[in-house]
Amino acid sequence: MARAKAAASPVVDKIVGSAQEIHGKIIAGRKPSMKFPLRSLSNVRYTPRKGHFEMAGRKKERALTVSTVKTFAQTLRMISLSKKLVETNDFATKRDVYYQTKNWDDARCDEQVESDTIMDDIEAFFGVTREKLKFTPDEHGGLVAGELVVLDPDKKTGKVREIDCTKLGRGSYGIPVDVEDLGFKTKAKFILVIETGGMFERLNYHEYWAKVDCILVSMAGVPTRAVRRFVRRLSDEKKLPVYVFVDCDPYGIGNIYRTLKVGSGNNAHLNEYFCVPQARFLGVTPQDIFDYKLPTHPLKEIDVKRAKDALKNDPFFQHYKEWAHAFELLLKKGVRAEQQAFAKHDLNYVMDTYLPEKLKHPENFLP
Amino acid sequence: MARAKAAASPVVDKIVGSAQEIHGKIIAGRKPSMKFPLRSLSNVRYTPRKGHFEMAGRKKERALTVSTVKTFAQTLRMISLSKKLVETNDFATKRDVYYQTKNWDDARCDEQVESDTIMDDIEAFFGVTREKLKFTPDEHGGLVAGELVVLDPDKKTGKVREIDCTKLGRGSYGIPVDVEDLGFKTKAKFILVIETGGMFERLNYHEYWAKVDCILVSMAGVPTRAVRRFVRRLSDEKKLPVYVFVDCDPYGIGNIYRTLKVGSGNNAHLNEYFCVPQARFLGVTPQDIFDYKLPTHPLKEIDVKRAKDALKNDPFFQHYKEWAHAFELLLKKGVRAEQQAFAKHDLNYVMDTYLPEKLKHPENFLP
Repeated sequence: MARAKAAASPVVDKIVGSAQEIHGKIIAGRKPSMKFPLRSLSNVRYTPRKGHFEMAGRKKERALTVSTVKTFAQTLRMISLSKKLVETNDFATKRDVYYQTKNWDDARCDEQVESDTIMDDIEAFFGVTREKLKFTPDEHGGLVAGELVVLDPDKKTGKVREIDCTKLGRGSYGIPVDVEDLGFKTKAKFILVIETGGMFERLNYHEYWAKVDCILVSMAGVPTRAVRRFVRRLSDEKKLPVYVFVDCDPYGIGNIYRTLKVGSGNNAHLNEYFCVPQARFLGVTPQDIFDYKLPTHPLKEIDVKRAKDALKNDPFFQHYKEWAHAFELLLKKGVRAEQQAFAKHDLNYVMDTYLPEKLKHPENFLP
Repeated sequence: MARAKAAASPVVDKIVGSAQEIHGKIIAGRKPSMKFPLRSLSNVRYTPRKGHFEMAGRKKERALTVSTVKTFAQTLRMISLSKKLVETNDFATKRDVYYQTKNWDDARCDEQVESDTIMDDIEAFFGVTREKLKFTPDEHGGLVAGELVVLDPDKKTGKVREIDCTKLGRGSYGIPVDVEDLGFKTKAKFILVIETGGMFERLNYHEYWAKVDCILVSMAGVPTRAVRRFVRRLSDEKKLPVYVFVDCDPYGIGNIYRTLKVGSGNNAHLNEYFCVPQARFLGVTPQDIFDYKLPTHPLKEIDVKRAKDALKNDPFFQHYKEWAHAFELLLKKGVRAEQQAFAKHDLNYVMDTYLPEKLKHPENFLP
């Protein structure tokens, strides 16, 4: 199967530049080395202004020695694989890359964690996302419906394909793993990001997006990198507010919402791209439970632990007093409520009453 | 939000009929009762000819007595909810229904398992799928790409929307939870059903479906009801063979493939609709591991247990000697292999070599 060559790429330029540097040192009889940013919590700072964790400046150096020869060789081979992928318009999942190393003779990886670590190093080394190096996650995820046309350039012909997300009927648009090259056309007023498939299905089935001019995104749990990046790029480019609608429990708020908004703790070198700092929390808030007389469930032990941990250790909850108060209220009442709990009143109460009331006052949304 | 009324429906006729019968008995001063098929393994038979588990004839009777009054009332209220959903063109997830019961005063359900059980009873009582009663699962799942146009009639206007799955770029079509009313237009020669998102992404990205005229379906693990029903209806209507491509391990074969093909053991009253008896196993077969020199992993303890259980207790593996042999080979070698393992040879070896070689001889596919 013929695959056309890509145009000149800044990533390839970077790769060629660093390869020439290493090659030059070897020719000159000097020891080649590479400097990587130190990827650990000790080298991370929280910047509320930017809205995500970011790397402090420290670096580690990997010089070619007897003890580093294997890692050094693996790093170079993986950079070379990335170059080939960019040039041939192809991509490799992390799992694919691991299997590719099986052909690297003595440099082969025995476990995927080896190749993943090197990939993270390379990503930090070049200061670009893995997706730009054409390494993609294995995880899919994220459906879209509503007032959005996705512009997707064909890699071979350059022809831009238009996918109109209002024309998918009861179905939806499945977000691909690599969203870097997608463009957008929309007249929507906001993006509504939803935790559960059931709620997304209800709003899409009744074309709620047409009534309020919005784009619906289903996360189906903690959002994957692709979902976070998709929402971020769409919101940035089209200057659209992002409202998030999840269950009212420590998992929905502390894991799903927080990961979408500020990123994850152990991938700080990526958060700049893979978070949505402009996201605001529509609901379900702890206060909604009482205002809307929602049926509740008692907090589970893991919920209590999660909330207490967040209050104690999580810079996000330490920074936002509103969230600390919300979690304290939840702990005090000892209950949680799901976004589907509005069905108690009426199946479409959420569309007919709750969302309209909430959307009148986005200024009241939690940060 | 106005929601138009549906046309007369056979489901509503059934509901009205049974309600009149119960009403008649009460008016006549007799005890009302309902007869449900007994939903348990003891009332199930395996029919290789039909290709799925099915109910034997036994029934349980639920008469209105002091001890059954709550369940009886719940059953009638849920049937009435179903009627309302059909008439208003709406639907409710299992979780929605549970929350709706919170308004049923003394007939309210304390746990979702209560309302789920009654839903299963009603489904078996009327002999139609839950989806026809407008009760849908909460689980989403399943992406489609390739040579298929989905025909999706708008419930309000009747207008048929056409979704062309060749025109979604790198993205895909997310299968809705209810696929009963979908129609299909296709020139494809077969359906290729895939376990992992990574493999689906690769084949879709390179538009492999255009090269071999097929429809790609991503299951992302054990297929949901919606995925199974979608593939079944598409295959039945368009007379398309279904080829399945999963990891070679007891989970991929014994759980994912087997559930797609013959359904699940504890939902026998549904298997008739929610299985794909015509599915055939393309790979990865245990023999492929050796023929294609795939990198392997040792079988985990749970793999060994799963395979031994299947050989001993599963009618599917008892019926198909080929599968029994395949599992015995796997156990003897003590290894498993993933569908992404072909990446060892080349990232696109799977498209350029493996699939073409396999597709030359579908008659050799495992049953």
